[in-house]
Amino acid sequence: MVAKVPKRCVIGVDLGGTKLLAGAVDGELRVHHRALRSSRGNVTREVLSIIEGAVREAIEAVGGAAEGVGLGIPSTIDRRRGVSVYATHLPLAGVPVADLLAERLDLPVFMDNDANLAMLVEHRAGAARGVDHALMLTLGTGIGGGILVDGRVYRGSQGAAGELGHIVVDQDGPPCQGNCPNRGCLEVMASGSALVREATAMAGERPRSELGRALASGRGITGPLVTELAHDGDEAARDVLALIGRRLGVGLSSLVNVFNPDVVVIGGGVVAAGELLLEPARDELLTRGLPPARDHVRVVPARFGEESGMLGAALLARDGVDARAAA
Amino acid sequence: MVAKVPKRCVIGVDLGGTKLLAGAVDGELRVHHRALRSSRGNVTREVLSIIEGAVREAIEAVGGAAEGVGLGIPSTIDRRRGVSVYATHLPLAGVPVADLLAERLDLPVFMDNDANLAMLVEHRAGAARGVDHALMLTLGTGIGGGILVDGRVYRGSQGAAGELGHIVVDQDGPPCQGNCPNRGCLEVMASGSALVREATAMAGERPRSELGRALASGRGITGPLVTELAHDGDEAARDVLALIGRRLGVGLSSLVNVFNPDVVVIGGGVVAAGELLLEPARDELLTRGLPPARDHVRVVPARFGEESGMLGAALLARDGVDARAAA
Repeated sequence: MVAKVPKRCVIGVDLGGTKLLAGAVDGELRVHHRALRSSRGNVTREVLSIIEGAVREAIEAVGGAAEGVGLGIPSTIDRRRGVSVYATHLPLAGVPVADLLAERLDLPVFMDNDANLAMLVEHRAGAARGVDHALMLTLGTGIGGGILVDGRVYRGSQGAAGELGHIVVDQDGPPCQGNCPNRGCLEVMASGSALVREATAMAGERPRSELGRALASGRGITGPLVTELAHDGDEAARDVLALIGRRLGVGLSSLVNVFNPDVVVIGGGVVAAGELLLEPARDELLTRGLPPARDHVRVVPARFGEESGMLGAALLARDGVDARAAA
Repeated sequence: MVAKVPKRCVIGVDLGGTKLLAGAVDGELRVHHRALRSSRGNVTREVLSIIEGAVREAIEAVGGAAEGVGLGIPSTIDRRRGVSVYATHLPLAGVPVADLLAERLDLPVFMDNDANLAMLVEHRAGAARGVDHALMLTLGTGIGGGILVDGRVYRGSQGAAGELGHIVVDQDGPPCQGNCPNRGCLEVMASGSALVREATAMAGERPRSELGRALASGRGITGPLVTELAHDGDEAARDVLALIGRRLGVGLSSLVNVFNPDVVVIGGGVVAAGELLLEPARDELLTRGLPPARDHVRVVPARFGEESGMLGAALLARDGVDARAAA
């Protein structure tokens, strides 16, 4: 029996703030192999080697025949210069990541902001299918953003648009995360990191809740734990998710007033909390937003969940390879 | 001697929260007549009659031969239904303003949000000429916004996009103005109304400043007075403008992170303060924004000042009349 080798595969890579996912993806968005790595490298070369290793594993798993690589990174990107300009959580500032990887792999490499890619795949085949105006927020270590305008991902004048996590919610709020110099950004108020921070504080305040007991028992407070306890009915955990959801809703009111989108897609790990997060977010949006935009927009979870960045990167590579073949 | 009657004139109307400006404008954006009115009507019919009267005056002044009317209103607009949805400062919610005026005037009437129109004329012939990605903020009674994406005014899925004055700057801030249900919007923090409020408070705190003396003497504190005193060197007046400018800069950091524009054009009456307002705004943007967008963008005053809405409305009418003739 001969193993079936998929045809026309590309490798999609989602480089998150803490982990990396590479997938060998065919033309129908089927994933034939997944390679997972920790992305915590202290120097640029280390991060590049982690990416290279994962891509090689995925290529070998599908018989060595990938046509190109798509790479999503959590960074503002200067598309004219092809470099990562400001990676909030990785040592990639000023690095021509795509060129360096293309040299290492001898394959065409296409790069974009990770949340732009999540937007791309959610529009092409997911929760924003069939609409022309949409936004994407990915709630993880940070908050990434993607903008769909008239059916296309919007990148602004230099390719750096879509930093939807870096809109101010509270001008005197806490300093933002990573390399962002701002205060009170949506990211520092409503990301997975904010969720863990608020849950830890809440656990201290309510020691008799399940959340409080988890903290006291030395179990580390994580996003998935808060979500699990909330789904099991712990009021303290639910209150934390509602707090984060309402802050998300404040950000949504700004974004919906600005863009009047058909859909806002919420992705990233935090959206595993589902309606416990989204319902308070929608309530806050309806309380604060302007009609008709606030009443028109749908706020929905991502279809592709935590794989949307990787799948979007594969779409980027597929589009890029096809465009070169047609040229 | 026969007075020269301009050819191919249209009437541009800018309906502000407190006053209305109608202009008879030719194809080279020359204004042949201006009609100014107070726009304070308590009922819809009253406001419509004010508009009609100003338009008729402008038409008669150029020999009775206008080809169409453009109308800018400070309202979110549902373009599919052709109605004003949510006029923050005027009794126009749910009113099909363009249709009603067209009937009264027997002329084609084209309608858009006033700040969209300011964006249009600043792009076509003003401070955003030659760029593809720009934003417009008009600082008056409220704060209007316009978005230029790939060279075209962006209106979102229902025509209600661009409410840039209604991004949250402080989630626990004061209730926003007019009919906006939000708190701590840029509009309530940095509009002309906010300027007057902060200047009045400052005048009370610093009775020996020129601003304080103006208040004590019974002179009403207005935006133009604050600007005049600041230009004359009064520190209290300058501090108020700097405060408003910094808040504007907080909003700019959000907007520039989201859009990565080439230019942000600041218009409306408040921009008469010039660099006393814009310099602190730019400083705050540089302190808070993400590279490369914060370093790339230029923040500049509108070229057409308080006439940008009226001139943009004239362009809208010109484009609309030409499109109908071509169809």
